[in-house]
Amino acid sequence: MDDILQALEAGELSAEQAKVKLTSYDNLGFAKVDRQRQERTGFPEVVYGEGKTADEIIRIFRSLKEHSEVLLATRIDEEKGRKIVEVHDDCTFDERSGTVYKKKPLEDTEHYIAVVCAGTSDLAVAEEAAITAEVFGVRVERVYDVGVAGLHRLLGEIERIRAARVSIVVAGMEGALPSVVGGLVAHPVLAVPTSVGYGANFGGVSALLSMLNSCSSGISVVNIDNGFGAAYNAVMIEKMAGS
Amino acid sequence: MDDILQALEAGELSAEQAKVKLTSYDNLGFAKVDRQRQERTGFPEVVYGEGKTADEIIRIFRSLKEHSEVLLATRIDEEKGRKIVEVHDDCTFDERSGTVYKKKPLEDTEHYIAVVCAGTSDLAVAEEAAITAEVFGVRVERVYDVGVAGLHRLLGEIERIRAARVSIVVAGMEGALPSVVGGLVAHPVLAVPTSVGYGANFGGVSALLSMLNSCSSGISVVNIDNGFGAAYNAVMIEKMAGS
Amino acid sequence: MDDILQALEAGELSAEQAKVKLTSYDNLGFAKVDRQRQERTGFPEVVYGEGKTADEIIRIFRSLKEHSEVLLATRIDEEKGRKIVEVHDDCTFDERSGTVYKKKPLEDTEHYIAVVCAGTSDLAVAEEAAITAEVFGVRVERVYDVGVAGLHRLLGEIERIRAARVSIVVAGMEGALPSVVGGLVAHPVLAVPTSVGYGANFGGVSALLSMLNSCSSGISVVNIDNGFGAAYNAVMIEKMAGS
Amino acid sequence: MDDILQALEAGELSAEQAKVKLTSYDNLGFAKVDRQRQERTGFPEVVYGEGKTADEIIRIFRSLKEHSEVLLATRIDEEKGRKIVEVHDDCTFDERSGTVYKKKPLEDTEHYIAVVCAGTSDLAVAEEAAITAEVFGVRVERVYDVGVAGLHRLLGEIERIRAARVSIVVAGMEGALPSVVGGLVAHPVLAVPTSVGYGANFGGVSALLSMLNSCSSGISVVNIDNGFGAAYNAVMIEKMAGS
Amino acid sequence: MDDILQALEAGELSAEQAKVKLTSYDNLGFAKVDRQRQERTGFPEVVYGEGKTADEIIRIFRSLKEHSEVLLATRIDEEKGRKIVEVHDDCTFDERSGTVYKKKPLEDTEHYIAVVCAGTSDLAVAEEAAITAEVFGVRVERVYDVGVAGLHRLLGEIERIRAARVSIVVAGMEGALPSVVGGLVAHPVLAVPTSVGYGANFGGVSALLSMLNSCSSGISVVNIDNGFGAAYNAVMIEKMAGS
Amino acid sequence: MDDILQALEAGELSAEQAKVKLTSYDNLGFAKVDRQRQERTGFPEVVYGEGKTADEIIRIFRSLKEHSEVLLATRIDEEKGRKIVEVHDDCTFDERSGTVYKKKPLEDTEHYIAVVCAGTSDLAVAEEAAITAEVFGVRVERVYDVGVAGLHRLLGEIERIRAARVSIVVAGMEGALPSVVGGLVAHPVLAVPTSVGYGANFGGVSALLSMLNSCSSGISVVNIDNGFGAAYNAVMIEKMAGS
Amino acid sequence: MDDILQALEAGELSAEQAKVKLTSYDNLGFAKVDRQRQERTGFPEVVYGEGKTADEIIRIFRSLKEHSEVLLATRIDEEKGRKIVEVHDDCTFDERSGTVYKKKPLEDTEHYIAVVCAGTSDLAVAEEAAITAEVFGVRVERVYDVGVAGLHRLLGEIERIRAARVSIVVAGMEGALPSVVGGLVAHPVLAVPTSVGYGANFGGVSALLSMLNSCSSGISVVNIDNGFGAAYNAVMIEKMAGS
Amino acid sequence: MDDILQALEAGELSAEQAKVKLTSYDNLGFAKVDRQRQERTGFPEVVYGEGKTADEIIRIFRSLKEHSEVLLATRIDEEKGRKIVEVHDDCTFDERSGTVYKKKPLEDTEHYIAVVCAGTSDLAVAEEAAITAEVFGVRVERVYDVGVAGLHRLLGEIERIRAARVSIVVAGMEGALPSVVGGLVAHPVLAVPTSVGYGANFGGVSALLSMLNSCSSGISVVNIDNGFGAAYNAVMIEKMAGS
Repeated sequence: MDDILQALEAGELSAEQAKVKLTSYDNLGFAKVDRQRQERTGFPEVVYGEGKTADEIIRIFRSLKEHSEVLLATRIDEEKGRKIVEVHDDCTFDERSGTVYKKKPLEDTEHYIAVVCAGTSDLAVAEEAAITAEVFGVRVERVYDVGVAGLHRLLGEIERIRAARVSIVVAGMEGALPSVVGGLVAHPVLAVPTSVGYGANFGGVSALLSMLNSCSSGISVVNIDNGFGAAYNAVMIEKMAGS
Repeated sequence: MDDILQALEAGELSAEQAKVKLTSYDNLGFAKVDRQRQERTGFPEVVYGEGKTADEIIRIFRSLKEHSEVLLATRIDEEKGRKIVEVHDDCTFDERSGTVYKKKPLEDTEHYIAVVCAGTSDLAVAEEAAITAEVFGVRVERVYDVGVAGLHRLLGEIERIRAARVSIVVAGMEGALPSVVGGLVAHPVLAVPTSVGYGANFGGVSALLSMLNSCSSGISVVNIDNGFGAAYNAVMIEKMAGS
Repeated sequence: MDDILQALEAGELSAEQAKVKLTSYDNLGFAKVDRQRQERTGFPEVVYGEGKTADEIIRIFRSLKEHSEVLLATRIDEEKGRKIVEVHDDCTFDERSGTVYKKKPLEDTEHYIAVVCAGTSDLAVAEEAAITAEVFGVRVERVYDVGVAGLHRLLGEIERIRAARVSIVVAGMEGALPSVVGGLVAHPVLAVPTSVGYGANFGGVSALLSMLNSCSSGISVVNIDNGFGAAYNAVMIEKMAGS
Repeated sequence: MDDILQALEAGELSAEQAKVKLTSYDNLGFAKVDRQRQERTGFPEVVYGEGKTADEIIRIFRSLKEHSEVLLATRIDEEKGRKIVEVHDDCTFDERSGTVYKKKPLEDTEHYIAVVCAGTSDLAVAEEAAITAEVFGVRVERVYDVGVAGLHRLLGEIERIRAARVSIVVAGMEGALPSVVGGLVAHPVLAVPTSVGYGANFGGVSALLSMLNSCSSGISVVNIDNGFGAAYNAVMIEKMAGS
Repeated sequence: MDDILQALEAGELSAEQAKVKLTSYDNLGFAKVDRQRQERTGFPEVVYGEGKTADEIIRIFRSLKEHSEVLLATRIDEEKGRKIVEVHDDCTFDERSGTVYKKKPLEDTEHYIAVVCAGTSDLAVAEEAAITAEVFGVRVERVYDVGVAGLHRLLGEIERIRAARVSIVVAGMEGALPSVVGGLVAHPVLAVPTSVGYGANFGGVSALLSMLNSCSSGISVVNIDNGFGAAYNAVMIEKMAGS
Repeated sequence: MDDILQALEAGELSAEQAKVKLTSYDNLGFAKVDRQRQERTGFPEVVYGEGKTADEIIRIFRSLKEHSEVLLATRIDEEKGRKIVEVHDDCTFDERSGTVYKKKPLEDTEHYIAVVCAGTSDLAVAEEAAITAEVFGVRVERVYDVGVAGLHRLLGEIERIRAARVSIVVAGMEGALPSVVGGLVAHPVLAVPTSVGYGANFGGVSALLSMLNSCSSGISVVNIDNGFGAAYNAVMIEKMAGS
Repeated sequence: MDDILQALEAGELSAEQAKVKLTSYDNLGFAKVDRQRQERTGFPEVVYGEGKTADEIIRIFRSLKEHSEVLLATRIDEEKGRKIVEVHDDCTFDERSGTVYKKKPLEDTEHYIAVVCAGTSDLAVAEEAAITAEVFGVRVERVYDVGVAGLHRLLGEIERIRAARVSIVVAGMEGALPSVVGGLVAHPVLAVPTSVGYGANFGGVSALLSMLNSCSSGISVVNIDNGFGAAYNAVMIEKMAGS
Repeated sequence: MDDILQALEAGELSAEQAKVKLTSYDNLGFAKVDRQRQERTGFPEVVYGEGKTADEIIRIFRSLKEHSEVLLATRIDEEKGRKIVEVHDDCTFDERSGTVYKKKPLEDTEHYIAVVCAGTSDLAVAEEAAITAEVFGVRVERVYDVGVAGLHRLLGEIERIRAARVSIVVAGMEGALPSVVGGLVAHPVLAVPTSVGYGANFGGVSALLSMLNSCSSGISVVNIDNGFGAAYNAVMIEKMAGS
């Protein structure tokens, strides 16, 4: 803002131009696409698919392609997914995680984010997180099917988790998992409660509370099923740590 | 009931006597004391102290002593406790757990119940459980200050827990503890959520939900802070297993 | 663990082999099957069917058959159930409880678990419990359609319940049932709230709270609709009691 | 209203007088005392004591005495109670139920309301109900200390409850009690949840839900701790049934 | 019970016969039909249709017809309803209330129950209540489409409500209605919250709380959508009041 | 009321006519249509479509047309909408907001209500509000797709919002939006939480709480998804402010 | 903002001055006092007393007096209140509402805000609202002790409420009051739930839900006990309507 | 673990020594102090003061001093705080945040964590976070008294927040603050809900939900009032980013 005000003061910008600077997006009518987001934040704009038609997402992708090499849409069901990749055939649709994306090849690196989950029922959210991180250019190690009820499985993988710079731990019925992982590693853990479960799970609330009350330090929590949000955070931290 | 009906049919009991059989308690006015509980269930009647005056508990103890060698009152605050043990000087008042009790010496045995808890804040409930079991004649091993955030402490004690026939796991902020213990032992685990904690613990509800959603099999749950109830269950199981 | 460490110290195991010992499962890609569970815990691994395809369950069963004479999968809908028993024709699909199983004939015994429920709406969960116990080799007595609103029905069956060593009481709208049963028997009661009901039942929460607040001692609770979990606990207790 | 409109039409009342008719109360400044309530509804106005000073209640009683032989104030703590009966020395203060009242002697009658409760902790609410009914001129039978965990006690008193025309069942931790009573009697049952209890009782919500979900027909529920409200209902029903 | 015990003592009954007396129902396998309920309580047994097949209800009706002139099944959807009345063609299926019933003609009487509701969305529950009362032999006046937001409509009908001996007030979004009615009548009001509504209604919880917190005395509440339960209570009260 | 009473006193009205005056609606059997609402309140009666058939709405519209130039029905799904506009072809069906309406042309005016929302997922509710206001004769400015996560978009539109006399701010996941808008404008803000969102949004409860706890003064809240209610309030305020 | 940007462009302001313009407050160290709030919004800054010491409030008042003739602090307990008026002796402390204030004499006007409440327990919140409105220069009519359970009292005052331009309806146990008032007046109603009550009131949540679900149009809601917020809204609307 | 196993295999460690390695803590009887935590995780052990006596904390500090130059205890009330610093006079007691600590002087650095909060009521939690970070050796910038209702204050400080590498945003009534900050910065934001507030804040739950539902990416949440936990996370991220 300082830059814009100074440019304005110096007469390098008109008041009108200053206003545009603060509001540069592409108005598609049904949505305003933020073309300069990547430049401003280092992250491309991601399309949240719920409540948007396939057509709308196709048009948003078209607009985004002018400024971004990578693309990501989340919460896409099968029907929409098929339609989108028919038009944007350089994109991939992943049914399990409900994402459509276009990645760049990752550079070779020893640094990675660990995405950890306990059960097959948490895979959708775990994959949303993993694919998001990869689209944002970060290497991911998937550590799946490790739960506290079978602690030996988790201990068998713990070195792979410890070597990560950030962990994302996805859990529904195994709400205890982030606590246990958090007590075994020395890096930040992002916990993602999932809505899967039965009985008194209440759409993920039980897992959420369990994670918030964790006694392990170094754990923070994102919203239920929000694999994307966890990945966004993890990527921010990973990029800050440098290569 | 069959016995009573048959005795009645056989003329060994009058209808009046049959009625008394079903309703044998000592009416103290403010409370009906169940004198034959021990005979009927194998367990002495325990006094729930909340809402009763010291005087009332003293009188109930007097009535119970006619039929029982052991005594237990729970939820007793310091003032009441002091008054009760002044009169019943063969009883002990334990401030931390809020219990007044009279135990019999335990027989020598290799079998025991493990009472496990994570933090100092759960000690009151853990001790209510431990003392209850001891009053009921069962040996207890206390495994305190072991939590999932410092898994090595728990693993350092796991053999002592495994050797028990039943475990009581008491946890407030460490709602994950029963899941982890349950995954490491092959005997029944009774989980007791505690109301201690801060933030989104909601007086123990978070721990309660965490325990109910545990993926480890072999775990069942009692009410928040109900150390007595867990011990009652554990003793039942332990006694069933024989010596 | 001690054994493995000592064997390692004695040179009988390499560090690599010690690691394998702690992590022995069959990696099918989509799931890690725990082949040695029965040996370690005395219980076979049970397949939780929700979120798994029929194909995946068929392959897990194949892997489990190498180590186990009995099989159990829960939360199986009709379509999956039909497919599984087509391939594994030594298994039975029970639609009401949503289970696929293979039992061994039970030995003749006077000892049993009572599975008690009030209404037809609780039958699915009650049967999940009953079948689980039978697959695990324990005799079950079913005491169905007894509720507190018609106390005479319950009293008419009470001797059959009393003679059990453990009771599982399944209840949705009749949340009071475990309290009443618990007051009439002298053995452990496992209460299972069910999500069936209407009005302010909140998917079983009302029954759950009712059970947790029971004044009868000797009751512990498992998660809503978790008939399997109750049976697992009951079998543990029953087996501990010996034959 | 018809009467007033017709009198107005007939010129027997002015519009102003008609207005007064609809709004006849005594304006004390801090409260409007409804002097004609008893005439209109058959019930005297009862003072809800919470948030009112002793002085205010003393003045309201003075105003009410002009039209009513009986008086009742609820939710009165000890200090206020003492002050009120100092001035109104024909009134009695009952500390346990927090009421100040003046009754008329009851006529001799076989008809009564049963007030049933399980534990000593529910006595305050039970007594608020019992005293209210007596102030309103109805005989009460108190059936206290009967709970579902000790069913024989309840069965020992069931005939006394059955003989009532209405029952008020007060319960906190014994939320099941109204269900069981409701299944054993053939008259209306008013259930009052109480806020006493521990663990997951949530200030009476657990008992409230338990009562709402009761499968016994013939049960309706009033607010938590609202002994007065239950008695008001019961008295209405009792009076309707005639003598 | 006394009678049975005395008959037993007198040798008029064997112990076996006494047992049968307490447990007289018709065991259909999937359900136990209580043939003597009407004799015992004055009310016929009503079939709760949820979770039962059309066939099962048809068979229960057959069994009930042996002892009862009237029949009622609630929570019946259209498909089941059609099947039942095909077989039991003396029964009527009412789609709106989801009931199948057979009534007796009502005797001529000035006494009635008022069933009051505000909106068209509460009609299903109101009709369940009205039909239940009629099947149980009580006259009903329906006062529909009166709500507090248009107070003049309610005041226009208030005399018809006042003349009833009991009112059932059904309300979802108009949770205030029972309070207002309760303040205008001098007879018992049974309030039924309904699950219909939008926004922060939470499946009827908002209406339920509103009703429980009503300041009008003489109101009691049944479970959400439980029109049947309200009618059962109302009929009990009405019958007690005599003709 | 005064007028009616005085007319009655003066003999200008009979008691019967006075009664009619208070209760003037058109009884269609299934609903009472309030023909004089517009005259009485200045607002036409609006049809709440949920739970009504297309036929019923068509008949209500016919009755309303006798007294009103404008028409509005809310919560109309596509099928019903099509049917209604087939018969009432001077009406428009708007699928997104689920409304059928007939507007009058707006007079030219500089005054307007701003309807503000953040995401495409809140459009349905925002449009219900906007169309309602327009049917009631008030100009609306739509300020859509502005959210706090992209504050520059909101600041780019803030002058358009500031120039309104009332704002309606609709938000689900962006519960913070009304707080931020409320801090930037000097006119009343009506906040509408929406049920759209995922994770711990709980059908709009999260947004509702966020709005209630707003620190900005000048904000009040209507029920979740109640765009109509917000518009009704806003129009009242707008009309009070004059032209 | 436009003005500042244009002034900056025109060289009338430096970038530094522009920044100051946007951030003009008085930094007292423990709080930033917004001196230009009145000029910007037409309302003086009000001090929220909770969590501030008497000394801090005294200093904030001193700072505010430089720009404002009127003063208001809310949530002030007795001790703080006494201290503040000792120093600022032109201020009044009102204990019931917990406010310290300095008003200007009101101009003579026929326009007013009605503040309506049902019980003595709601007076604190009602007075916070009334005093706030008066400090902001608006006439208030207090209509207290009118509730739906005694509808005649409310109807006796309805004309006084109808004549207001806005109503504030404060209610705890009488959650129905705003619905009923809303149905009887043709101006905006601001509903304030209060935390006073007993049983299932949940600190005002029950009243809050009741108000949100009101079927009367023209009602909006502020936070529990937020009398100040309601008054702030009402004053905005009142001022917009002109004199 | 690998190291220990290999050392054991190589005979460099005995099985006994290996066990000690995994369980190295100082057993004080009432607590096990983890002496090697700093070595293992890079962070000193922090004492959670709730439920511990001053004496116990004094002894734990003594034990910790053998391995750590810095000390921190949280949740310390005034009385305990005074006692601890009397003995450990190199420590400071900060009453507002309830912490006792001993810091090392910070190295000169341009990198810092921003701790942001809106109101004076959030200061305690904000200071717990700030002091924790400083004890752990990280520079902190405090940005207090900036809230969304006065957006200009926040915008006036935004550059200072943007220049941080991580932000901790503490908010109770201003639950919207993290969303707004998150949308204005390009680094990770840790949101801390606080339990301060009134009305429908529910001890911080409202703020918690608001934060979880934030639409700004890059936000994660810790438990209510858990300033320590947020700081622990922030320090981890900050240290990972390097100097």
